[in-house]
Amino acid sequence: MRKVISKNIMTYMGFEADFEDAQLVLFGAPFDGTTSFRPGTRFGPAAMRQEFEGLETYSPYLDMDLEDYELFDAGDLDLPFGAKMRGLEMIYDQTKAILEAGKIPMMVGGEHLVSYGPIKAVSEAYDELVILHFDAHADLRDHYMDEPYSHATVIRRSWDLVGDGRIYQFGIRSGEKTEFEFGREHTTMEKFSADTLPEVVKSLGNTPVYVTIDLDIMDPSIFPGTGTPEPGGLTFKEMIKVTNELSHLNIVGADVVELSPQYDMSGASTAAACKVLRELTLAVLRGR
Amino acid sequence: MRKVISKNIMTYMGFEADFEDAQLVLFGAPFDGTTSFRPGTRFGPAAMRQEFEGLETYSPYLDMDLEDYELFDAGDLDLPFGAKMRGLEMIYDQTKAILEAGKIPMMVGGEHLVSYGPIKAVSEAYDELVILHFDAHADLRDHYMDEPYSHATVIRRSWDLVGDGRIYQFGIRSGEKTEFEFGREHTTMEKFSADTLPEVVKSLGNTPVYVTIDLDIMDPSIFPGTGTPEPGGLTFKEMIKVTNELSHLNIVGADVVELSPQYDMSGASTAAACKVLRELTLAVLRGR
Amino acid sequence: MRKVISKNIMTYMGFEADFEDAQLVLFGAPFDGTTSFRPGTRFGPAAMRQEFEGLETYSPYLDMDLEDYELFDAGDLDLPFGAKMRGLEMIYDQTKAILEAGKIPMMVGGEHLVSYGPIKAVSEAYDELVILHFDAHADLRDHYMDEPYSHATVIRRSWDLVGDGRIYQFGIRSGEKTEFEFGREHTTMEKFSADTLPEVVKSLGNTPVYVTIDLDIMDPSIFPGTGTPEPGGLTFKEMIKVTNELSHLNIVGADVVELSPQYDMSGASTAAACKVLRELTLAVLRGR
Amino acid sequence: MRKVISKNIMTYMGFEADFEDAQLVLFGAPFDGTTSFRPGTRFGPAAMRQEFEGLETYSPYLDMDLEDYELFDAGDLDLPFGAKMRGLEMIYDQTKAILEAGKIPMMVGGEHLVSYGPIKAVSEAYDELVILHFDAHADLRDHYMDEPYSHATVIRRSWDLVGDGRIYQFGIRSGEKTEFEFGREHTTMEKFSADTLPEVVKSLGNTPVYVTIDLDIMDPSIFPGTGTPEPGGLTFKEMIKVTNELSHLNIVGADVVELSPQYDMSGASTAAACKVLRELTLAVLRGR
Amino acid sequence: MRKVISKNIMTYMGFEADFEDAQLVLFGAPFDGTTSFRPGTRFGPAAMRQEFEGLETYSPYLDMDLEDYELFDAGDLDLPFGAKMRGLEMIYDQTKAILEAGKIPMMVGGEHLVSYGPIKAVSEAYDELVILHFDAHADLRDHYMDEPYSHATVIRRSWDLVGDGRIYQFGIRSGEKTEFEFGREHTTMEKFSADTLPEVVKSLGNTPVYVTIDLDIMDPSIFPGTGTPEPGGLTFKEMIKVTNELSHLNIVGADVVELSPQYDMSGASTAAACKVLRELTLAVLRGR
Amino acid sequence: MRKVISKNIMTYMGFEADFEDAQLVLFGAPFDGTTSFRPGTRFGPAAMRQEFEGLETYSPYLDMDLEDYELFDAGDLDLPFGAKMRGLEMIYDQTKAILEAGKIPMMVGGEHLVSYGPIKAVSEAYDELVILHFDAHADLRDHYMDEPYSHATVIRRSWDLVGDGRIYQFGIRSGEKTEFEFGREHTTMEKFSADTLPEVVKSLGNTPVYVTIDLDIMDPSIFPGTGTPEPGGLTFKEMIKVTNELSHLNIVGADVVELSPQYDMSGASTAAACKVLRELTLAVLRGR
Repeated sequence: MRKVISKNIMTYMGFEADFEDAQLVLFGAPFDGTTSFRPGTRFGPAAMRQEFEGLETYSPYLDMDLEDYELFDAGDLDLPFGAKMRGLEMIYDQTKAILEAGKIPMMVGGEHLVSYGPIKAVSEAYDELVILHFDAHADLRDHYMDEPYSHATVIRRSWDLVGDGRIYQFGIRSGEKTEFEFGREHTTMEKFSADTLPEVVKSLGNTPVYVTIDLDIMDPSIFPGTGTPEPGGLTFKEMIKVTNELSHLNIVGADVVELSPQYDMSGASTAAACKVLRELTLAVLRGR
Repeated sequence: MRKVISKNIMTYMGFEADFEDAQLVLFGAPFDGTTSFRPGTRFGPAAMRQEFEGLETYSPYLDMDLEDYELFDAGDLDLPFGAKMRGLEMIYDQTKAILEAGKIPMMVGGEHLVSYGPIKAVSEAYDELVILHFDAHADLRDHYMDEPYSHATVIRRSWDLVGDGRIYQFGIRSGEKTEFEFGREHTTMEKFSADTLPEVVKSLGNTPVYVTIDLDIMDPSIFPGTGTPEPGGLTFKEMIKVTNELSHLNIVGADVVELSPQYDMSGASTAAACKVLRELTLAVLRGR
Repeated sequence: MRKVISKNIMTYMGFEADFEDAQLVLFGAPFDGTTSFRPGTRFGPAAMRQEFEGLETYSPYLDMDLEDYELFDAGDLDLPFGAKMRGLEMIYDQTKAILEAGKIPMMVGGEHLVSYGPIKAVSEAYDELVILHFDAHADLRDHYMDEPYSHATVIRRSWDLVGDGRIYQFGIRSGEKTEFEFGREHTTMEKFSADTLPEVVKSLGNTPVYVTIDLDIMDPSIFPGTGTPEPGGLTFKEMIKVTNELSHLNIVGADVVELSPQYDMSGASTAAACKVLRELTLAVLRGR
Repeated sequence: MRKVISKNIMTYMGFEADFEDAQLVLFGAPFDGTTSFRPGTRFGPAAMRQEFEGLETYSPYLDMDLEDYELFDAGDLDLPFGAKMRGLEMIYDQTKAILEAGKIPMMVGGEHLVSYGPIKAVSEAYDELVILHFDAHADLRDHYMDEPYSHATVIRRSWDLVGDGRIYQFGIRSGEKTEFEFGREHTTMEKFSADTLPEVVKSLGNTPVYVTIDLDIMDPSIFPGTGTPEPGGLTFKEMIKVTNELSHLNIVGADVVELSPQYDMSGASTAAACKVLRELTLAVLRGR
Repeated sequence: MRKVISKNIMTYMGFEADFEDAQLVLFGAPFDGTTSFRPGTRFGPAAMRQEFEGLETYSPYLDMDLEDYELFDAGDLDLPFGAKMRGLEMIYDQTKAILEAGKIPMMVGGEHLVSYGPIKAVSEAYDELVILHFDAHADLRDHYMDEPYSHATVIRRSWDLVGDGRIYQFGIRSGEKTEFEFGREHTTMEKFSADTLPEVVKSLGNTPVYVTIDLDIMDPSIFPGTGTPEPGGLTFKEMIKVTNELSHLNIVGADVVELSPQYDMSGASTAAACKVLRELTLAVLRGR
Repeated sequence: MRKVISKNIMTYMGFEADFEDAQLVLFGAPFDGTTSFRPGTRFGPAAMRQEFEGLETYSPYLDMDLEDYELFDAGDLDLPFGAKMRGLEMIYDQTKAILEAGKIPMMVGGEHLVSYGPIKAVSEAYDELVILHFDAHADLRDHYMDEPYSHATVIRRSWDLVGDGRIYQFGIRSGEKTEFEFGREHTTMEKFSADTLPEVVKSLGNTPVYVTIDLDIMDPSIFPGTGTPEPGGLTFKEMIKVTNELSHLNIVGADVVELSPQYDMSGASTAAACKVLRELTLAVLRGR
């Protein structure tokens, strides 16, 4: 009897290893329940899976190829809609399982709040964890519309976990006055750009690092695919300088969040998101 | 000194009376927090205010003109994001205040869950209240993703308030098998169309009636502006037959919900929504 | 050790059986290489997989539920780009394998040329095969731009296989004069509508039937998602009458083709395509 | 020396005769200077030229083929921007030249005001001229924003030329109350549909007729490509009944106006506009 | 009796003072009647009001907050459509009334021609007025399509008012050869960029200055929301350098024009326009 | 008799000379048959013709005006669909005819494969031909999906014609690892940018040069109108530096390819493409 051809599994291209063999495990967290202005990041992981097919696995920036590594794509979590705290717990559990298996977790969002899951799990696994936060927004509010857990408070909640001096912020160009004041006292914040990253990288040496990239750190010219466009961000070439620089760190977990494909009419934002994911993944592997 | 021209108030055209003089009071409820698939109805009331400017106040269908009535536009409620139950309470309070002033409430959504607010307030004010429900979806689930209050449960929750035999449903063409089973026992449901409306209207006589129109009862051909397109719905001409028919009833409250302008590239859905609002408003007034 | 949650397989909702248990096997054929005007149907199967998630498995039209049947989704074929004839052979092989396993093949296109694959395989398996063809276009040219195999010749090529009196065409409203002349002599063609379907169905009795639905038989008002919009087609309600009617036949293979999601800004076309697929699948199963 | 291939002339497909041989002369009038709400019809003629390429010249409705007639495409007028009255004069002159050469003028707009040009020229050439007006809007205002010449006054200005009892209006469903009152006294107006057309056609016999079709008479479901969508219009099949009916008249001039391609994301409106133009052209020729 | 919640007034966020208390008065001038290519700027002020809601009032660039100032939003003028000169007079009157009340006028367009209104009023109030003009286009034609008042002539008409040596132009990269020649003799023009602004600012000292910003001075990468995209413009960071620099001047009136939201699919242009308006407003206030 | 105004010929603005008088002959090659991911460049030449109307003929960069030269627009080739090799031959013939008449060929694509036609013709006419290749992609594969002639192999096929050391590549940032390896041995490749162009230009002196510009060398921020967005490319200002630099060369043929207007929602990409075409044309003429 002839065999029915079945190609029914959609993974990120180059992420075709089995879980057991993999160094790094990718998963999606499609959730945008606290987005106040224009929702849509719930569709981010699905859009990136489709776009990744048109992307090369080879990076001419790092001269590395995804195909030379063992990477596992665990698919997207099925997050309970309208039950924010339960969803965060599922993300936390997923990350913990990956860490306990001795692998590096790499998450694709969703809105920025989802980062709280892996940050909690990773901060429990690594005492001296440092967080590098790339974003247009400070995300340092204590509450947002009376809610302590929100896309606008996620770094403040992360600070609750790791404390003063352990969070570095880059590219910040929007927020309330009080967020910038909080940043001056409790985090290390570079406004508008990421020019100080090389010195920060040098100072960190082998410290375990979690990297969270809100893609809207990039300028809306190259990344219009977001519900809250903040002109004045990084060009893609500047973003690549960032990922190149990160390849010198000891990264123990990372995420890429906030693609909203509905505002990405041409597909350029999704392509940019996929390339950032590729370069960040390779940077993590280079650092091993 | 010359006078600075100020035209800073955007109301629905034809709704320019003061609150005190008004027979009918319109307000917006821009909320889509329980939408599971594609959000966006939070932008509905704002889009309709803009589009209404291009609309005539005169209806050639009913040969009536909005300008011949006293109508007040109370603007949009500022609903607390991510706090569903608190929002429903605000909507309930707003409706109660309108009713206590002896005026008819007319709400513009938002997702269908918002209808729970006025339905609760109106059902408390009128003992024998009957609900006419126009929709593509049955909205009769008991829970949706473990939540009792959701766009997919709103008519079930309304049934909790008014009980058997007091809800008439039209145009229903999508739902789980169990919803259709529930409908067979507890509501009067016409599937696919609204052809039985004239007899229902006749049978109701002067009974106080609440009308809730989920605009997706219309076919996506004329109403693509929705996150959950369900082909097979009413044409606009059939919709007008509905509003014409409603003008024979004693309507004590009404709403129009579920326009999602993000999926309305041409503006046709928003125009259709505005015309339904105009015709429904005139139908309510005719019935006085 | 905790388990990593993996939900990495995207199938059409309700198509979750194993191949061995399945009565019916669905597969995608994402190819649009001969499209002359506006390409894009290569993206059809992927768009439908995504949209199907938001669809109910229960049909209120046939009062049947996909979940009550054993259905297998074989994924999309990886058709060699720019090698039309090789692609058609792969589709033919896939269909043959399904037939030899005693299951019914259901294909999702792609442009209409892909239907040649299953039609060839099914016509070899069933001597007396009749083809029901639903389409805006006659597809009866002998050559198109000097090519014998093209979206515009596919029914002519199918006629080569089954001969006179075995092809019934419905909804045809565009073509060259010569195509309509050919139709008058060699096929049974209803122009503009499908009103004669009930008598055709009655006349066919238990004859094995292949059904090919070019979705552009529907009017562009409900199905704008096509590269060649032909106003004057069926409403969705008329389309449902068609699928209801088909449930009385002995269908041995079927396909649904020509969704071009790039022209479906609101998602309504993709929703319509998914519902046609659901109803057609249930109609095939009802006929068993 | 080899010949450089030049195919530099874009005409409506099937309109390839020389001026001298032609029975009918088509020209475009790309102007939208008085559009108050959403401009864009200036791009109509260009969009239709492009779309016409994908259209068949054969009509299965009338069983006629454009290629069997001598038709000339005179291109688009280069109308002076912001000089409304001068533009109208150029359109008038163009029409007059066509009439003096013994040919039938067929104009493609542009906003509806452009129809004043040919209506003036044709009404001067034919004493007993009757105007058939297909539109969603009455266009019977005397002034619009203090201007006597506007898209909203064009039929009122035409009435100035031909007087009472010579204008028949169909499909009208939007306007100020006073326009409907004017219509009751001075024109023959059918609201909402064109069901009375057959009797009108019969009554007109061989009277010379000018036909002006504002494409927004069609429902926005099939014709979203307009700045002022008015749901409740004709389906495309009803539109075809209109053009079929017109083929029994003695049409001495005609136009098709108000396509705004910017609101036609899928191309369906432009396709519908092209088919109406094809059918209207064939109807005019049939009537000869 | 309960109070009906009314939030019916849409103002630019942070512009909530009363007219009497305000230092600065903002108003919209939604007009695009002379736009020759692609209209749409008439929708600019409305789009910016909506987008402003999602914007922070705090500027991390100037470390200033709109909420610390008294600002009045006078709404949009209701400009008579198709009566260009009358509209310009209304804009002139509005500006004059603001100036006579001792407040600073800030206008939001609309096409660039609307700037003629405030420039005329301000130039009458300040003898030595200097105009800083930021734009992709020279706007120095004497006539455009035979019209002296047009978006393409507005700076030439302003030169009629203030004469040689009082107009500084930046970012100019498109125009007819003769415009560049006129600029060489009568204005101070920097092509392509605004690098010379700091020296100009220094040279101006306390001179009263009017600032007119055609947003298309920015590159279409960050500002696609325009009918005439001119690649090669300022990045948003360069634009911010401009507004920062302007904070050292004595600005007595200003405007921001030419956002066409129809070409701004992602919302990024509108966000950029709003930020330019915020920064320009703060720059004006800083200069006090 | 009055004259019928006819303006039926659409040429690129400024290209209005007769063939005989022209120095340079432009033609379009609308073909995208080997595009694997997202097709659409077949619509490029038509979109550019339309957009060119809104463009100035004067370049402020080179201080030259298209109107001062004799340029002929030969229109678009009617390439046989689905017959790749025959199409390439037609393009080759067209170029040969232009060269034999002593004129410079300038082609507008279409996908990059079309460049093979003029490169073959020009390489036969000039022994020492050097090719300057501007692109995001290396296009150096030997086969792509088993096909030797493809958009992904066109420079490899050109290398077959001219051999080692005669191809210079700029801006390359995507490809398989093996392509970069091939480039290192057989071409001169600058990755990511075109900073080395000035020295290359200097070294070439009067050597005959063919220039092929794949517009996706530009960053998707300014050029989203492509099926394969590759962030990290040239800004438009950097692109202008390239065309300025090219004006010092002896260019004997050139092309501009890969605009896909379907992904250019705002029109900015098409405007950029037109400006590159204008500047490249002027650069070629300056070099004479």
